[in-house]
Amino acid sequence: MATRLKGIFTPMLVPLDEHGEIHEAELRRFINWLIQSGVHGLYPNGSTGEFTRLTVEERQRIVRITCDEVKGRVPILAGAAEANVRETIAACELYHSFGATAVAIVSPFYYRLSAESVYAHFREIALHSPIDVTLYNIPMFASPIDVPTIQRLAEFERIVGIKDSSGDVAFMMRMIAAVRPVRPEFTFLTGWDCVLVPMLVAGADGGTNAASNVVPELMRRLFDLATAGNLQPAMELQRRILEVFDLMLYRFEFPDGFRAGVEMRGFDFGRSRQPQTPAQVADRGKLKNMLQCLIADTGLIGPPPGGCRFSPTHEPLPPASPSDDVQRIVVDVLDALRQKGVL
Amino acid sequence: MATRLKGIFTPMLVPLDEHGEIHEAELRRFINWLIQSGVHGLYPNGSTGEFTRLTVEERQRIVRITCDEVKGRVPILAGAAEANVRETIAACELYHSFGATAVAIVSPFYYRLSAESVYAHFREIALHSPIDVTLYNIPMFASPIDVPTIQRLAEFERIVGIKDSSGDVAFMMRMIAAVRPVRPEFTFLTGWDCVLVPMLVAGADGGTNAASNVVPELMRRLFDLATAGNLQPAMELQRRILEVFDLMLYRFEFPDGFRAGVEMRGFDFGRSRQPQTPAQVADRGKLKNMLQCLIADTGLIGPPPGGCRFSPTHEPLPPASPSDDVQRIVVDVLDALRQKGVL
Amino acid sequence: MATRLKGIFTPMLVPLDEHGEIHEAELRRFINWLIQSGVHGLYPNGSTGEFTRLTVEERQRIVRITCDEVKGRVPILAGAAEANVRETIAACELYHSFGATAVAIVSPFYYRLSAESVYAHFREIALHSPIDVTLYNIPMFASPIDVPTIQRLAEFERIVGIKDSSGDVAFMMRMIAAVRPVRPEFTFLTGWDCVLVPMLVAGADGGTNAASNVVPELMRRLFDLATAGNLQPAMELQRRILEVFDLMLYRFEFPDGFRAGVEMRGFDFGRSRQPQTPAQVADRGKLKNMLQCLIADTGLIGPPPGGCRFSPTHEPLPPASPSDDVQRIVVDVLDALRQKGVL
Amino acid sequence: MATRLKGIFTPMLVPLDEHGEIHEAELRRFINWLIQSGVHGLYPNGSTGEFTRLTVEERQRIVRITCDEVKGRVPILAGAAEANVRETIAACELYHSFGATAVAIVSPFYYRLSAESVYAHFREIALHSPIDVTLYNIPMFASPIDVPTIQRLAEFERIVGIKDSSGDVAFMMRMIAAVRPVRPEFTFLTGWDCVLVPMLVAGADGGTNAASNVVPELMRRLFDLATAGNLQPAMELQRRILEVFDLMLYRFEFPDGFRAGVEMRGFDFGRSRQPQTPAQVADRGKLKNMLQCLIADTGLIGPPPGGCRFSPTHEPLPPASPSDDVQRIVVDVLDALRQKGVL
Repeated sequence: MATRLKGIFTPMLVPLDEHGEIHEAELRRFINWLIQSGVHGLYPNGSTGEFTRLTVEERQRIVRITCDEVKGRVPILAGAAEANVRETIAACELYHSFGATAVAIVSPFYYRLSAESVYAHFREIALHSPIDVTLYNIPMFASPIDVPTIQRLAEFERIVGIKDSSGDVAFMMRMIAAVRPVRPEFTFLTGWDCVLVPMLVAGADGGTNAASNVVPELMRRLFDLATAGNLQPAMELQRRILEVFDLMLYRFEFPDGFRAGVEMRGFDFGRSRQPQTPAQVADRGKLKNMLQCLIADTGLIGPPPGGCRFSPTHEPLPPASPSDDVQRIVVDVLDALRQKGVL
Repeated sequence: MATRLKGIFTPMLVPLDEHGEIHEAELRRFINWLIQSGVHGLYPNGSTGEFTRLTVEERQRIVRITCDEVKGRVPILAGAAEANVRETIAACELYHSFGATAVAIVSPFYYRLSAESVYAHFREIALHSPIDVTLYNIPMFASPIDVPTIQRLAEFERIVGIKDSSGDVAFMMRMIAAVRPVRPEFTFLTGWDCVLVPMLVAGADGGTNAASNVVPELMRRLFDLATAGNLQPAMELQRRILEVFDLMLYRFEFPDGFRAGVEMRGFDFGRSRQPQTPAQVADRGKLKNMLQCLIADTGLIGPPPGGCRFSPTHEPLPPASPSDDVQRIVVDVLDALRQKGVL
Repeated sequence: MATRLKGIFTPMLVPLDEHGEIHEAELRRFINWLIQSGVHGLYPNGSTGEFTRLTVEERQRIVRITCDEVKGRVPILAGAAEANVRETIAACELYHSFGATAVAIVSPFYYRLSAESVYAHFREIALHSPIDVTLYNIPMFASPIDVPTIQRLAEFERIVGIKDSSGDVAFMMRMIAAVRPVRPEFTFLTGWDCVLVPMLVAGADGGTNAASNVVPELMRRLFDLATAGNLQPAMELQRRILEVFDLMLYRFEFPDGFRAGVEMRGFDFGRSRQPQTPAQVADRGKLKNMLQCLIADTGLIGPPPGGCRFSPTHEPLPPASPSDDVQRIVVDVLDALRQKGVL
Repeated sequence: MATRLKGIFTPMLVPLDEHGEIHEAELRRFINWLIQSGVHGLYPNGSTGEFTRLTVEERQRIVRITCDEVKGRVPILAGAAEANVRETIAACELYHSFGATAVAIVSPFYYRLSAESVYAHFREIALHSPIDVTLYNIPMFASPIDVPTIQRLAEFERIVGIKDSSGDVAFMMRMIAAVRPVRPEFTFLTGWDCVLVPMLVAGADGGTNAASNVVPELMRRLFDLATAGNLQPAMELQRRILEVFDLMLYRFEFPDGFRAGVEMRGFDFGRSRQPQTPAQVADRGKLKNMLQCLIADTGLIGPPPGGCRFSPTHEPLPPASPSDDVQRIVVDVLDALRQKGVL
């Protein structure tokens, strides 16, 4: 039986060169930086990776490069949704041959399908995929996958988890309550970075978080703090990430705020394929400055050339991480208290 | 200056053979039947044509077959939306070389874009397409195109019309009010079959109507009656089409109700690429019987083998069409009354 | 059997004096002006009348004043929705005693009820009301009343019609198709002024139109033109009303745009009970000027003191109304053509 | 400066006698039982209390009875929303004279107001109320109160908190981030029982929870566990409450599921004022049995007469509550760890 996927998976942005083509060297450099920065896994061809704006061949190339560069250091969850079931199964086969750990398949989009049709779609894939499948629920973009459907689909051994981007903590709890009793190893990941701590408290195993493209160190630290039971510093960090996430998500056209953030970390990701008007380009400059100030405030990067007009409203962040030793002590103490029935 | 596209354009369903491949012979036979049944134009690669479930190559093949088979008999509006602007422009070039009349491009989907980004997307296409472009607004599936954006896009000569599937008559009136004063030849088509008459009254030029796959004769007759000012019989027919349309649209998973309808007209369209559960297959059988009864009621086909349990609740439809002579007289009388300022 | 309610019913705004109390003298003057301006009926305590912002006693007083002032000249449709079924039935009894023609009862609001509960609510009222009841469907504010529920409720003789403010022409057609075969005298009114002509084409009997507070003459003329089959001038007028309606509805907080419009027609309606910030008051002044320009353009009133910066973009409206004689001729001609089966 | 309201506030259901009138004796008995069961405060005239289905006089009577019966034992948050600002301020004055602790005022409903108008509404109340005011945000029923508006309203000393029923944990975090820096004593309560623990983790002070009408002991225990940092047993209990809450909320018409629950705890609450069809009454019986089984499973009540068909799927709940002594130890330990910078 598979072990659960756990931790922070980065839905990787895609660097493009001056011709609008995939910038392979930069992508490889980015992959290594993400791993070194502590993310637990990589997730090419997700929504943040603008998979719908790539061609079939480009999606394949991205997974191939990722598998080739990672060389087994971390698990790879490869986005494999294609035009129809047959094409999707072909992608499952291909990504399996590349060495991906599992695939993530977004619910059918454009048409809004009934629950029964969503089931039929994933059932067909589950029956034919040679690689483990993670469902991907993102109701703002694709046909919703409801709890009874998840429960039915969890009957297929091939389906091993779900990534949910609804941001609804109660929904996470309902999914877990419906599936865990029969599939204890089923993985639940959240795509809603700004409530990762509450989601972990609610039982989630981790996240596929767009923000981990930009602040992978912080997302990792947040995960470590929360899973070690250090909720107070975890929530302090969560509040900072909420601020950065909200700016990147709501003030830019998705996922351009995250692209702007990655540029600040020293990567040359080029222009998105979604054209922008001159007014948008001007806005982007101002927003990027604001974003740099927010991230600078966490200590990861310096402020923009002109400085930040506002004085930091935040307490300095807690030191980068309690030493592993101390963390282990805390976990031990908490465990001990639990065994005595106190917690 | 281009003349307006007018009349009924069929967003063609795609026949598949037993291997799930495009059934070219049946597609050619279907094209000829549609033209003979009176539709004014064809619209391959629309939502009804399940363009998102086809590969790039299949979409190209469908337009090629259509252009080849039509041989200039009717205008062809070819769906050309691809993964990104560059790919879309390449499709515009290709379909232009095939001899299509214009392309229809759905607003970006999956991501819900801001109005400014929708504008940027179509602006880029308008600047580079060698073929006239029709915008396609379908807010239930794709980023909405609002009235100010339509107004801005109408400044590009290359953009010659809009197909709107919102079903909102007031929206149609607002678009027309915003654009006609500056672009009198701009085309407005509705994709909401069940209110085609009210839309024509409101100023629309015609429709791209899924129902015209199934009852092309009736859609044509409805258009002729409404544009000749024969509103009473037009509305009587509209009410019948509403009934058939609602059954095909709301009781089946879109567009399978329309596929079921086409089968009844003697075509072998095979199974959709969207898988169905056994429960869905059973339902489909029952619904198809109901649909056959409704269509039989219009006189176009016979009832299903078991007969129709309900007795027809409708008056028999008016005779197939008032003779052209009589229609012309009516139009002349109405014109004369108008010239006298009476109407 | 009751005859259908037909024509334009004004959902009357409520004038308030400097103390925020109902300004009875102005209300009586307004009622007389509306009747003289040609509206077919009055509708006190509708959404435009801000019934939820009045006390129970005030709602009663408004109906009493209306009945007293109208003295049978036009039918009165009195809004009778109260806190619960028992209070609503008491209002039905009271308004019956005042001499109202029928009551209009909005679907339960605040809580969003299921179709079954909406049915239970109106069923209870239908069984106990001494006065005819019109259902009021306004899904943007209250629990929706769907077509099957309307069909079930139409089995009660006491329920004689529905006012629908969804603005959805297809929904109007579906309601009519479901109810007319069994209740030919059932009344269908639309509350969506900007598509009144398409709604009349679709079979509606008239409207309860907020715009008829401001331009009652135009709404009446529009109704007369459309029902006489003069669709071209009707649609020309409809387009002008759309423009005025959109400005009053979308640019102001509802129904303050309509209050601003009534002031321009020479009435002193005072300040609404919904407080406004200074920013809103300033906006209101500018918007009111724009509105005055639009209405001045129809010839009903003069332009604002500072004049209208934009030159009129419209053709002058057709003369106030074809003489009754000519209209009758047109109707006769059309009838004759219909009898010959030409139309 | 006021201290924050904290803990579980019960939005009290209203018992009705066989004539549909307020059952005062039962209401008083219920109030005492709630206090004895450990809730921290009472909240008459909330959504669960069906305030819109009561008359003005009945709403006043309920607050009077509550204040009279409570006699200062727990704080009272009285729902004071009336037809308009003037009536609402009058209710504030009255409830102040009754001795209520604060009022809760739902955002204007029926009409969906702009943020600016929502601000204007509460600003007027804040300027004239003699009693502290809690905002009440319930976007599924009333005009939403967005974060910038909450921030602006928090400038009024008279406004001391917000009750939010959106269920959105990220929204709770955004509100807190916007307001706490300038108003550290501002109270944040959640009305979404099924995520109370995640909300407390996110910084909320407590909840106004409909479920506390039915299982007040469990809601209190959940609050105590979560605020003492005992997250694991808190979440175990949260999962059980989710199950009970979902059944009461989604399977019944709101708030009838909660009325059914209270009946099981030995109270005679009579029939709701919202009529039910025979089909609904039959359903209610079955659902009530299911609900009794779920609650019986927590040990608070016995199973229904016919027993529960399903065997309990749950572990027995942890013992009623760790003794206060043990809890204090845990809190001390955690504090100590925090002081050492470990947590």
